[in-house]
Amino acid sequence: MSNLIERLSAGARNTAESGIVEVFNAGWHHEALIPLWAGEGDLPTPDFINRAVKASLDRGETFYTYQRGIPQLREALAAYHQDLYGRVFSAERFFVTGSGMQAIQLAVQAVVDPGREVIVPSPSWPNISAAVEIHGARPVPVPLREANGGWSLHMEEIEAAITPHTAALFLNSPSNPTGWTASEDLLRAFLEIARKNGLWIIADEIYAQYFYGEQPRSPSFYDIADEDDQIIFVNSFSKNWAMTGWRVGWISAPPIIGQVVENLIQYSTSGVPAFMQWGAVAALTEGEDFLASQIERARLGRNAVFEGLQETGRIGAKPPDGAFYLFFSIDGVTDTRRFALDLVRETGVGLAPGSAFGPGGENFVRLCYARGQDQLAEAVRRINAWLPEI
Amino acid sequence: MSNLIERLSAGARNTAESGIVEVFNAGWHHEALIPLWAGEGDLPTPDFINRAVKASLDRGETFYTYQRGIPQLREALAAYHQDLYGRVFSAERFFVTGSGMQAIQLAVQAVVDPGREVIVPSPSWPNISAAVEIHGARPVPVPLREANGGWSLHMEEIEAAITPHTAALFLNSPSNPTGWTASEDLLRAFLEIARKNGLWIIADEIYAQYFYGEQPRSPSFYDIADEDDQIIFVNSFSKNWAMTGWRVGWISAPPIIGQVVENLIQYSTSGVPAFMQWGAVAALTEGEDFLASQIERARLGRNAVFEGLQETGRIGAKPPDGAFYLFFSIDGVTDTRRFALDLVRETGVGLAPGSAFGPGGENFVRLCYARGQDQLAEAVRRINAWLPEI
Repeated sequence: MSNLIERLSAGARNTAESGIVEVFNAGWHHEALIPLWAGEGDLPTPDFINRAVKASLDRGETFYTYQRGIPQLREALAAYHQDLYGRVFSAERFFVTGSGMQAIQLAVQAVVDPGREVIVPSPSWPNISAAVEIHGARPVPVPLREANGGWSLHMEEIEAAITPHTAALFLNSPSNPTGWTASEDLLRAFLEIARKNGLWIIADEIYAQYFYGEQPRSPSFYDIADEDDQIIFVNSFSKNWAMTGWRVGWISAPPIIGQVVENLIQYSTSGVPAFMQWGAVAALTEGEDFLASQIERARLGRNAVFEGLQETGRIGAKPPDGAFYLFFSIDGVTDTRRFALDLVRETGVGLAPGSAFGPGGENFVRLCYARGQDQLAEAVRRINAWLPEI
Repeated sequence: MSNLIERLSAGARNTAESGIVEVFNAGWHHEALIPLWAGEGDLPTPDFINRAVKASLDRGETFYTYQRGIPQLREALAAYHQDLYGRVFSAERFFVTGSGMQAIQLAVQAVVDPGREVIVPSPSWPNISAAVEIHGARPVPVPLREANGGWSLHMEEIEAAITPHTAALFLNSPSNPTGWTASEDLLRAFLEIARKNGLWIIADEIYAQYFYGEQPRSPSFYDIADEDDQIIFVNSFSKNWAMTGWRVGWISAPPIIGQVVENLIQYSTSGVPAFMQWGAVAALTEGEDFLASQIERARLGRNAVFEGLQETGRIGAKPPDGAFYLFFSIDGVTDTRRFALDLVRETGVGLAPGSAFGPGGENFVRLCYARGQDQLAEAVRRINAWLPEI
């Protein structure tokens, strides 16, 4: 019977189990668990969003709907982007997807043929490379380089990784797990390389508003690119509005490829339930205060965790520029998988081992600080108390 | 700017727009539209299902959840199958997916590598072949043969289509659009061919309970296959419980490949919202009466439409054995795309042109009769009044 597995497709057989899941399985029964391993906060979706779903269900909006998304949500996305980026957006460039993850999958399908390559700075969220592999294409990691706890990406390394097989460059900024955030100058250089080589950019700016620099958001390709540049933006409602469990995201792409994006949606999940989309409309149109409180919460969490862990004198990290993770090394720890397993079993603090994030992540662990202050303080207390034992 | 489209992946560029959409676009503004073009009834999701969603939202179940589905839904699926097929099922073989469409996409990813072939009897739901193509594999149509309005599939034609590249055989029974339903003998022969050639079967028995033979459901691979046969069943909540807009389905597969299915879910949409899954639990555990009324409605619709259209003397069809479509030819009509466009513009009756369903469908149109009697009678009246004009 085990040869059933051998008979699966090579692409499917080779998919790796998420490296976070192993630690989750070791720890989720812990009676005093503080789960900082996932990219998820501790607040449920706010009521004003849920109410919009209930109202839509009551209106009987349970039939097939627009493959690209209901017009009201596409308009709301255009208005949201207009506010955030200070320029006009057409609703025609927005396509509602069944999660940010699916936005990535569809973007890969749209611009990458099996057998081709996608350059992905690493460490990175493992699902990006996995989506490329399942599609029969090859992710090519280019290192984000770490020094003294800070991270950097080098354009000459991106250029050197380009081959005749390259179809796209992936860029996630602010970055999960490192918090590294591209400057506008870097984005310009990156775009220039893509243009020069006729390559697509898949731009993941999901954490744009979780940014701790002087501006209210991180630098964006929207600031520098033309409307018809070969860029597909992938995004999600998950992080901004506490909607991780919803699986609703969006693609932003040149409207001229709209029919192709619609076809890819049609042949993967055939759209997102209309009643869910009304929840997303509420998030965009009534969610400003909630989002501001989410960002402030992350900012406080970032400071508390960074300062708290510094007390041990064994933490290698700088305060991250963006996203809501601290990605840190621990003096004396080389096997971070073992470390994460032991930590959660012995203290109930769940971190994600850096090995889960691909090449360059092995010496680090990831802590999500998008949570309440009390919980984070308790987590820091437990880690600091336990560290001297190892 | 139009060369943006040329720069998309070949797989994406080659996806065809659904052939039903063109007719939909021509007709959906009609003031007296009777939409019989989609595989969708006219009833919204019943309240007892919606209530379960609302209750889950009120419990704050908006976080990431089990990639394979919440345990309660997997157990409910096992119990549902046990009732329907009269034998024991393990909850471990069920995986919740973001629609029946996604179940097909994941099944293809699981067992087909890019460059390989999938045999698909034709005419068929176009999304099946499209999902194969997007994955970089090739759908190989084998004709369902029509004679006097009845359809048949010939095993020697299936065998003749097998090549060294074949990875899987797709079988949809009862069939959309034809209503053709495999006998148990045919299923045995089909399974034998798959076994002999080491091929997977992707079994789409979504319409199992919309069956008009002597048994309460159509013959199934569950009746004849072993637990570890290479069969992946794809299914959906859409048709049975008026949940078309929900995008919730399931895969049933040998539990030994569970980790691979979980990985494929993780890297495509990362699961289905927990609060949606509670709606699906309600459908399975409290939905028996509603489902019975749905089936009875389709049975009445089938008879009324078939008998009504017979009055013209120009309809080529037999009462279908299963599913909820009448797939019929019209004496004197060869361009069914044109026919469907004219019909909806002039009468407001929306049918799907057979050309949308691939080779062998060109001379037919599809009418969905899963609707109320009054509406169907009115549609028949309009078609019969209009037919003499063409």
